[in-house]
Amino acid sequence: MLNILILIEVDESLKQKMIDECKGVNLVFCNRKEVTLEKLNEFDVLIGNLTMKLLKEPNNLKWIHFESAGVEKFLDIDENIILTNSTGAYGEAIAEYMIAAVFTLYKRFHEYIDNKIYRSWEYLGKVKRVYGSNVLVVGLGDIGYTFARKMKALGCNVSGVKRTISEKPDYIDNIYTFDNVDDVIGDFDIVALSLPHTKETDKIFDYNRIKKMKKDAVFINVGRGKTVDTDGLIKALEEDHLLGVCLDVVDPEPLLVNSKLWQFENVIITPHVSGNYSMDYTLERVVEIAIDNINRYSKGEELINIVDRKLGYKK
Amino acid sequence: MLNILILIEVDESLKQKMIDECKGVNLVFCNRKEVTLEKLNEFDVLIGNLTMKLLKEPNNLKWIHFESAGVEKFLDIDENIILTNSTGAYGEAIAEYMIAAVFTLYKRFHEYIDNKIYRSWEYLGKVKRVYGSNVLVVGLGDIGYTFARKMKALGCNVSGVKRTISEKPDYIDNIYTFDNVDDVIGDFDIVALSLPHTKETDKIFDYNRIKKMKKDAVFINVGRGKTVDTDGLIKALEEDHLLGVCLDVVDPEPLLVNSKLWQFENVIITPHVSGNYSMDYTLERVVEIAIDNINRYSKGEELINIVDRKLGYKK
Repeated sequence: MLNILILIEVDESLKQKMIDECKGVNLVFCNRKEVTLEKLNEFDVLIGNLTMKLLKEPNNLKWIHFESAGVEKFLDIDENIILTNSTGAYGEAIAEYMIAAVFTLYKRFHEYIDNKIYRSWEYLGKVKRVYGSNVLVVGLGDIGYTFARKMKALGCNVSGVKRTISEKPDYIDNIYTFDNVDDVIGDFDIVALSLPHTKETDKIFDYNRIKKMKKDAVFINVGRGKTVDTDGLIKALEEDHLLGVCLDVVDPEPLLVNSKLWQFENVIITPHVSGNYSMDYTLERVVEIAIDNINRYSKGEELINIVDRKLGYKK
Repeated sequence: MLNILILIEVDESLKQKMIDECKGVNLVFCNRKEVTLEKLNEFDVLIGNLTMKLLKEPNNLKWIHFESAGVEKFLDIDENIILTNSTGAYGEAIAEYMIAAVFTLYKRFHEYIDNKIYRSWEYLGKVKRVYGSNVLVVGLGDIGYTFARKMKALGCNVSGVKRTISEKPDYIDNIYTFDNVDDVIGDFDIVALSLPHTKETDKIFDYNRIKKMKKDAVFINVGRGKTVDTDGLIKALEEDHLLGVCLDVVDPEPLLVNSKLWQFENVIITPHVSGNYSMDYTLERVVEIAIDNINRYSKGEELINIVDRKLGYKK
């Protein structure tokens, strides 16, 4: 019987759901802090994230299913081990976070919240309309598509940037590649990044690209901090470029206490919390994806969410 | 020829649009500060708001079209004068404001923004999911319907409260009246008020009704401050009831500097700005509605947005 080690921190009800729905396999639930190499060697399959320190040692694993979507830390794992991730679990949480970012900045809530300390009943000026805005979603994975679909439902014109042009769903108006993003970026009111960090995406948003955006654009990053050149962003902000910025990811993390980013009233910073398990639904989805993949594996069917080690994420 | 005095503050392009589209009438544009009773007596029709001090004097007006949606200050005007308002212009702006309120409070942006002063990279805990939330829209006029439609598009279950049960659009699941609102209010995650202030709606949300809401509900008021009993709301907040509150209208306005409402971290306060002309689109809509009504009036057709003086708003 297939021995599967589960490191996802599930409550009793989700644990029972996994036991009920994964037939013909031996599921062992364990606190990840208690996993030793010896313990790990008892298993064929690992479900959940573990430190590379342990995973780089020789072991008997045939398949690792990560509970995260980002897996850049794990690409060096022995090539004979299949890697899958939990893409599809985080889109809802992170897309809703992105909507919060857009509306907060558009409606000047960040300024009214700041002003509360003065008990100030003062009109701060015009606000922008989300309906009809031009939105560019950079990185069309689960997160990007989910955000795009919701923004379309709110009446936006939504375009996307991908590595390669592919068929597009109805709720996306145009798809561009990184080769021509600079030709169109000046048309967008909202530019939102949900990119993995790879060699290709490192600092892909630098000073020059940011300056090509509209002066009153909103800029959001929920992917990886290293896809933005922090100094370039700060320089653009110092030149009063951009209406507002919302960063859930920065480079480095945690954001340095002396970073200038903290000083801008129109920059919202959250400590890499848009995904994780900040929203209960995410954990439920992670478990559902894991159950689906365990059943596929035990039946010899094709797995979903296989990580392409060259791309660094699910193909 | 019909003499029409326009007090709406239009720019050159909207002024030209009115001149081009209102045929066979004499439009006179004027700064409202320069209007005297003598001047007013030259006109058959007034388009735009003016102080009651002038409007209660005998005059030759046959029809006044207000640029606001709320007209409670004007109900005593001579009954021979037809009153119409600009309901339909404000829904977009105020509904988007309400969405900002929901997402800011759900995603704890108000707390992360407050925390920025400490340069704190600290996780503040779980957030709620907007998708699947139960939303109760109290007051189904233009604003309520627009908010309901947008929240439905974001995956919420949306119900409404009206004075009387009527046919409902597809995007609303259930309609209740004020007689049975207390039976259902405890089911809702988000309760949003967009009510006019009338005798019937005065302090319609008091301490007891607020306490019947879920302990972790979000409460929003964008209608009129006097529809909520401020002291009752403060008492409920002091008892740690409600996840968060967003008030664009309070009683009295401006909010007193020593009001306890300023002290709650989970209360967002804006100075009655969700509507007005905070969003450019609103003025464009006000002008479109005015043009439509001017053309109806000059052709002897039925006017839209006639104010029911007993109800205190458009029927």
